[in-house]
Amino acid sequence: MPTILVTNDDGVRAPGLLALKQALASIADVMVLAPEGNWSASGHNKTMHKPLRIHEVTLADGSLAHSSSGSPTDCVALALGGALGVTPDLVVAGVNTGLNMGVDVTYSGTVACAMEATIKGVPGIAVSAIKPGRTELDYAELQRLAAQVASHIAAAVLERELPSKTLLNVNVPAVTREDLRGVRITRIGSRHYAADELVVRKDPHGQPYYWLGGSGPIDRPDDGTDLGAVHNGYVSVTPVSLDMTDHGFLKELSAWNLTV
Amino acid sequence: MPTILVTNDDGVRAPGLLALKQALASIADVMVLAPEGNWSASGHNKTMHKPLRIHEVTLADGSLAHSSSGSPTDCVALALGGALGVTPDLVVAGVNTGLNMGVDVTYSGTVACAMEATIKGVPGIAVSAIKPGRTELDYAELQRLAAQVASHIAAAVLERELPSKTLLNVNVPAVTREDLRGVRITRIGSRHYAADELVVRKDPHGQPYYWLGGSGPIDRPDDGTDLGAVHNGYVSVTPVSLDMTDHGFLKELSAWNLTV
Repeated sequence: MPTILVTNDDGVRAPGLLALKQALASIADVMVLAPEGNWSASGHNKTMHKPLRIHEVTLADGSLAHSSSGSPTDCVALALGGALGVTPDLVVAGVNTGLNMGVDVTYSGTVACAMEATIKGVPGIAVSAIKPGRTELDYAELQRLAAQVASHIAAAVLERELPSKTLLNVNVPAVTREDLRGVRITRIGSRHYAADELVVRKDPHGQPYYWLGGSGPIDRPDDGTDLGAVHNGYVSVTPVSLDMTDHGFLKELSAWNLTV
Repeated sequence: MPTILVTNDDGVRAPGLLALKQALASIADVMVLAPEGNWSASGHNKTMHKPLRIHEVTLADGSLAHSSSGSPTDCVALALGGALGVTPDLVVAGVNTGLNMGVDVTYSGTVACAMEATIKGVPGIAVSAIKPGRTELDYAELQRLAAQVASHIAAAVLERELPSKTLLNVNVPAVTREDLRGVRITRIGSRHYAADELVVRKDPHGQPYYWLGGSGPIDRPDDGTDLGAVHNGYVSVTPVSLDMTDHGFLKELSAWNLTV
């Protein structure tokens, strides 16, 4: 049996992590190492200048897991560095409480876990579902569905091979099992956050503080994109490359004739 | 005069930030908002769940700047949200103490500043130089050279237009002004960190702690890449796209016929 590391950015106690762990147990030995708390929107954040701790945790189903004091990325680096003895053959991060589509990919701690695995030569998958409170469906059921989807995709990745710089970013729509229409292979779509409203207030001592707010995302559910697929009731599977070069702009930029 | 926001991930007191601010003053009004301390390798990290503070700071040349309690990304979001009154026309982050090439692009707080600007519709440039201690050249002189290079490139960006999802990642080689060979437009090259050594030790109380270490990077200075250009004494200018889709793999991934 292959070994899969399950991790997330919502913290080791998140129900989505447990659902994922349980679904993957049918295809692999599963090890869990996840952050102690919530690291949403933490990006690809690595701790190099201080030590990290690892603790044993008992999950809600009585099974053993591990937490670390580090970031989601750190959890992957620790596990792939051998901190738990066995090194995994695949890293699956999720089920995130919140879809990671469009530009979210650059902020997401969930996607960062899959990035870190990919950089270390181990395939990585990020799996996300809608935020709780944004659907009237049974949320635990939705997380189980997302976890089952992840298990299917994980099995395919274990059988085949991803390109060396590519991870899979999976988003599961808020539908029941019966209403799930299938899988779409997608590109990253257009999601904007309307000019992050900046909230400025005075604290009880008269000093100003600032809070980065912003209304929900403004999505363009174009055909062929992650946003389009999820909008239409499909699972989106987006291959995400660590080669962020804008290859299409190289020629025009050369014509700028930059000198120093 | 256009307005440029200068920021970084090394903290508002970093000499590279001051060098950059001074160089850019010849082409624009410059405002500074940078983190209070060091956020290296912090990724594209956004603070949404707690308030942030902004403080006035006097830089080493006596000029006024601002610091925030947030991440590099937060500094950009705060400034573009209007926290300092004026909103900038361009964001330039650096001069980072450490080259950001190859896979560093995904971790770099400096590049994250340019990402955040790009997402908000303002052009972004990240500028980096070698780490202090890795060169025998006068380091202050090297930072001034990198800042001058940044100023040339910033002027070009203000005159022209970047694609809407593209930032520029600039790396300056450790050479004197006379030995600088020019500019190369590059793609992201291959930089590996040899299996992050994981250091495990016992603390004074007998408890284990873990430290993510790893030797320096293993670089492949291929022609056409950032690593190749800098290795050969050229400034590398890499267009970096926020569309991380692996477009080349979409067709093959579709042929996997994933089902759920």
